[in-house]
Amino acid sequence: MAERDEFDLIATYFAPLTAGASGAFDLTDDAAVLPGPPGEDWVVTTDTLVAGVHFLPDDPPADIARKALRVNLSDLAAMGAVAYGYTLAAALPAQTPEAWIAAFTGGLASDQQLFDVHLLGGDTVATPGPLALSVTAFGKVGRGQALRRSTARGGDAVYVTGTIGDAALGLDVARGGLGFLPSADRGWLLSRYRLPMPQVRFGPALVGLASAALDISDGLLADIGHLCRRSGVGAEVDLARIPLSAAATEALSGEAACLDRIAGGGDDYELAFTVPDDREADLVGLAASMGIAVTPIGRTRSAPGIEVRDLDGRPFVPDGSGYRHF
Amino acid sequence: MAERDEFDLIATYFAPLTAGASGAFDLTDDAAVLPGPPGEDWVVTTDTLVAGVHFLPDDPPADIARKALRVNLSDLAAMGAVAYGYTLAAALPAQTPEAWIAAFTGGLASDQQLFDVHLLGGDTVATPGPLALSVTAFGKVGRGQALRRSTARGGDAVYVTGTIGDAALGLDVARGGLGFLPSADRGWLLSRYRLPMPQVRFGPALVGLASAALDISDGLLADIGHLCRRSGVGAEVDLARIPLSAAATEALSGEAACLDRIAGGGDDYELAFTVPDDREADLVGLAASMGIAVTPIGRTRSAPGIEVRDLDGRPFVPDGSGYRHF
Repeated sequence: MAERDEFDLIATYFAPLTAGASGAFDLTDDAAVLPGPPGEDWVVTTDTLVAGVHFLPDDPPADIARKALRVNLSDLAAMGAVAYGYTLAAALPAQTPEAWIAAFTGGLASDQQLFDVHLLGGDTVATPGPLALSVTAFGKVGRGQALRRSTARGGDAVYVTGTIGDAALGLDVARGGLGFLPSADRGWLLSRYRLPMPQVRFGPALVGLASAALDISDGLLADIGHLCRRSGVGAEVDLARIPLSAAATEALSGEAACLDRIAGGGDDYELAFTVPDDREADLVGLAASMGIAVTPIGRTRSAPGIEVRDLDGRPFVPDGSGYRHF
Repeated sequence: MAERDEFDLIATYFAPLTAGASGAFDLTDDAAVLPGPPGEDWVVTTDTLVAGVHFLPDDPPADIARKALRVNLSDLAAMGAVAYGYTLAAALPAQTPEAWIAAFTGGLASDQQLFDVHLLGGDTVATPGPLALSVTAFGKVGRGQALRRSTARGGDAVYVTGTIGDAALGLDVARGGLGFLPSADRGWLLSRYRLPMPQVRFGPALVGLASAALDISDGLLADIGHLCRRSGVGAEVDLARIPLSAAATEALSGEAACLDRIAGGGDDYELAFTVPDDREADLVGLAASMGIAVTPIGRTRSAPGIEVRDLDGRPFVPDGSGYRHF
């Protein structure tokens, strides 16, 4: 990447290239929308993973494959789309062993079954550099029904699915941190980092209910910041209400600085979404019926800016490490 | 890439992942097909270019951008689809200068205008390795009308568009070869290598006329081999009939070994296609009306295998360098 921030570069140089393509949303959303069969839209998203940046070169090949697929399925879920298939562009280092490719495609095969998607096309090339994988995933949603990040209104409740911060703490574990945790906790956090579980059932169920949605990939506060900025609203967020796993609770009680990572670290691939006041009961009923944990962590407001309260209800001051400022 | 041939790896490990997705054509065609709006199909293709492999790292950034886009537009043209838009996944080396990105996106902007396409989405990430670009392009074709490479019948005429071999000779020039040519010829060949001109108007015009089609990217004989194998036919090809540019004619008369490169080198991004006997007059009329050069270079036959005659009408024995055996 260049000296300038990725988001600035995209806004300055890439977003103008979408002029005339309304379904591209100026590159500000999780995915683009193309007209599909009668009554349906195609939702299209693309994500690239590079060895040494987004995963470790010696991670299990099946996990690398599944992560590359799942981060894209998460974008589809955030738009409310039901996954259909994907294309894969793989730049493989020279002399990649055939056994590696066999394990890699084995990982894809098992996730294809799990998520009911198919490979649609692809390109494999040799590279003198690190392994790089670009997946472009396709999903379907009712015509005009895709969930957006720009459509929240002031006064909506802010919810998240699942538990937050596990992936960021898992990355700590991968780097040798959090040694004070029981090894089962460390293993569990690591698995949450290595292999996210996108909310592929719940995302589509939020269509017509959530006022806005995105998946948490940059970090909880950063992503809520994206949603609010795009929607032209602000938000209050209570860190005390963030749903934590048992392992994250353990980590936080052993090391208070973990709160920064939980609030700021990315890669959870849970959903953050807003719901109008008068739909909260519907949401809670839906989530219960599907067995999905949802937790309200704050509320949007008309005034811009994100006001975050720490565990004691005081203004939260992040240490600035671990995530882009919100 | 691994020890084994790319085509073997795709057939062994990747093609089975398309089971159940009929529009993926077992990864044997130029692109995949998805259902589109009423009466239309989406054609989707993806191609990756890596610095040092598919272009030189210090090539002009605008040319790199345009080549990445054009090789995908060529795949769409080969399927008979009208280009609509594309997503771009870019892995950029750390510290890529902003001026490089400005020039790169400037190249995209000018080609977007030329080809009437829009950026639909994308992802930019940092890489410790060489620049890698994956474009996924979308085009439209009438429902069930996409041109395939598997549908030629024995006795069809084999045609190509434009002139063949220029790009391979341009690569020679880039590597310091063909010094005996006038510099204008060398510059022209180099430009054909650097910046292909996909047959975006003629490809869609071949729908309903060509029995099979693909674009020439692996090399003329290799690609005709692909088409014939997929169609279950063979072919006779006369190298003496291959249409050559003035510069290629000059190169060939100065260095007889250029014939290998012309017949075997890739990257021309012209179309090779087959036409039933009784449609040849229609084809010639269509091409004339559009100002597109088309040249018959042989004929398919029921018996498998490709029989190639050299400039003197004798069996052509390639030297095996410069292309995968057909």
